[in-house]
Amino acid sequence: MTTLAIVYHSGYGHAAALADHVAKGAAAVTGVSVKTYKAEELGSPDMGPWAELAKADAIVFGAPTYMGSASAPMKQLMDASSKVWAGQGWKDKIAAGFTVSASQSGDKLSTLMQFAVFAAQHGMIWTGTGMLPGNNSSKASIEDVNRLGSFLGLMAQANADQGPDVAPPAADRKTAELFGARIAQVARQWSRARQPVAA
Amino acid sequence: MTTLAIVYHSGYGHAAALADHVAKGAAAVTGVSVKTYKAEELGSPDMGPWAELAKADAIVFGAPTYMGSASAPMKQLMDASSKVWAGQGWKDKIAAGFTVSASQSGDKLSTLMQFAVFAAQHGMIWTGTGMLPGNNSSKASIEDVNRLGSFLGLMAQANADQGPDVAPPAADRKTAELFGARIAQVARQWSRARQPVAA
Amino acid sequence: MTTLAIVYHSGYGHAAALADHVAKGAAAVTGVSVKTYKAEELGSPDMGPWAELAKADAIVFGAPTYMGSASAPMKQLMDASSKVWAGQGWKDKIAAGFTVSASQSGDKLSTLMQFAVFAAQHGMIWTGTGMLPGNNSSKASIEDVNRLGSFLGLMAQANADQGPDVAPPAADRKTAELFGARIAQVARQWSRARQPVAA
Amino acid sequence: MTTLAIVYHSGYGHAAALADHVAKGAAAVTGVSVKTYKAEELGSPDMGPWAELAKADAIVFGAPTYMGSASAPMKQLMDASSKVWAGQGWKDKIAAGFTVSASQSGDKLSTLMQFAVFAAQHGMIWTGTGMLPGNNSSKASIEDVNRLGSFLGLMAQANADQGPDVAPPAADRKTAELFGARIAQVARQWSRARQPVAA
Repeated sequence: MTTLAIVYHSGYGHAAALADHVAKGAAAVTGVSVKTYKAEELGSPDMGPWAELAKADAIVFGAPTYMGSASAPMKQLMDASSKVWAGQGWKDKIAAGFTVSASQSGDKLSTLMQFAVFAAQHGMIWTGTGMLPGNNSSKASIEDVNRLGSFLGLMAQANADQGPDVAPPAADRKTAELFGARIAQVARQWSRARQPVAA
Repeated sequence: MTTLAIVYHSGYGHAAALADHVAKGAAAVTGVSVKTYKAEELGSPDMGPWAELAKADAIVFGAPTYMGSASAPMKQLMDASSKVWAGQGWKDKIAAGFTVSASQSGDKLSTLMQFAVFAAQHGMIWTGTGMLPGNNSSKASIEDVNRLGSFLGLMAQANADQGPDVAPPAADRKTAELFGARIAQVARQWSRARQPVAA
Repeated sequence: MTTLAIVYHSGYGHAAALADHVAKGAAAVTGVSVKTYKAEELGSPDMGPWAELAKADAIVFGAPTYMGSASAPMKQLMDASSKVWAGQGWKDKIAAGFTVSASQSGDKLSTLMQFAVFAAQHGMIWTGTGMLPGNNSSKASIEDVNRLGSFLGLMAQANADQGPDVAPPAADRKTAELFGARIAQVARQWSRARQPVAA
Repeated sequence: MTTLAIVYHSGYGHAAALADHVAKGAAAVTGVSVKTYKAEELGSPDMGPWAELAKADAIVFGAPTYMGSASAPMKQLMDASSKVWAGQGWKDKIAAGFTVSASQSGDKLSTLMQFAVFAAQHGMIWTGTGMLPGNNSSKASIEDVNRLGSFLGLMAQANADQGPDVAPPAADRKTAELFGARIAQVARQWSRARQPVAA
């Protein structure tokens, strides 16, 4: 069984909705089990959930983009992981990231870069969307998969005046499911042949 | 008179259209004169246009985002400027940047970061859009100013199957004019009190 | 009088030492007054210190780089500033940033980019080091000013096993003073001609 | 046999020296064959070398950092690869990157981010150094492996006044070999279980 952990923070529920759809897409892949974790409930690195993360084949990091980077509660989790880093406990795991904000671009790429740089410190191997962009021609629409045109990780957009029951919209939820499936498949392939990788 | 130079590359005309609208917005500011330069026509740094850049109060850099960063002809201009850098010839000038791609996000922030890092090497002072985001609520629309929600610099989106006569759309052209006006006003204010600034 | 605020977080004292030297350099500039603020003591945006920030001509942001980006307590301050952002209360102020970590590069540029993107959301105007790089030839040394070769903001390096009494070393403290002086001079020049800037 | 391609540009020979050492480290891994390609000699994407890249299990991108990002000849190669991108010809390959500049930090992280964003557009899977940092304590030295403390990719530093016979120094060449070995091992593990991975 390949295991995938989703660690996220959600301020108003939009990132949580996204996490659910990433999980749904991943769980649909044969041979993959998925579990989601709220960043603010992980506690200190000597506690139970961290032991589960230590065994996961892949960890997906998610947070809203607040003022141009991952939300503070997510950063607290990232900082806490420095204890894991010291022992390189997450080395060679598959990593990926997602984010959401009210604006279309809204500096979401900055958050995804922050996650990719973070994962690289841990020696993790980074997987993006692996998708072509949608909504980029006169015949395309905002109902396309990957309508925002994101590659390093998953981007979603949630209107500032709508709750997580309707935002982000269906297109982004569908994109999240495809993204979850991709990360799960990469993790399954990677773990299938897993063995220690040097230096 | 405050002088503003716009240095850009355009592969298919969309960035050129954007440059024209940035110039239009800047030229409408009292006391500001504007000139546009094609990056691929600037030649080597000992040639005429570079002497004009050396005297400008502000330089705006623009290029399409190709494969996640500024187009190669723009990068050639940036590399050529290393001769200016050695003598810190652009130090303390106002700098800004714009980019366009077919996707909504499309890694355009990566290009703007590249420009900001480049300008910082030159010791330039960076100015962004200074705008609130548009198209980020259920009552907003793609006809809003700053519809992509960009802050570090100007972002525009041009459908992959449309020429520069119609893409980027009117909202982005209007945003470009406001952006040009802002950079011109910042440059005018800055040059008004200009004097050498220490190390 | 031009006023400069330094807002920072320091986990082990190294960033605090840096803040002190930035402040020292800035305070030595005629006509400039400086005040430092600990990010974790700023409270909510309706409290006193925020009113002082609202009046400052320049704000310098500083934090250690933890796991590839600004420390979580600094991010909490950044997130809290979203209330100021809604009213564009920091628009057109001068902004700058500094960071420190144990490694020479250590992803410090990621933190400076995070600060620059953050400042751009606020509509602030970004100023870097304005310095040439040190320690980049066979005749140079680690005692050079700007020995790490940083431009977007100030970088310092503090050995992991040394306290803030000795780390970061003298070269970085001297660099911090020159950096503080530069930001102060830019802020003074900018405020001298200050008036509302459009868009 | 797992195949690894190294595609690089070198202006003065320092990046070429680095490419040689990355290749040396990779070639020492059992079951891995390595070939290096000069970016400026690859020609258009319908030519022979591109067919070899299409079959490679991993591609390592390398270039000097000029003015804050990858050198223009490297960017030309990256732009030319858009034809491959349209058909997703490099999807699911392992990717990695390296860069060199005269300064210690010198905005090299900006180039590595540029490569990671580029690789993500291609749907490639990104591998960093997987190393702990060197030269970050009072007992460490510039002769340490990973003396610059880089994670997203390989960083080296070459004194501005020294040729590629001596710069970058031995520590960086050793780091390059370990980096090459790591990428080769990740690629071997990945290709061992390779099969198409979904969208």
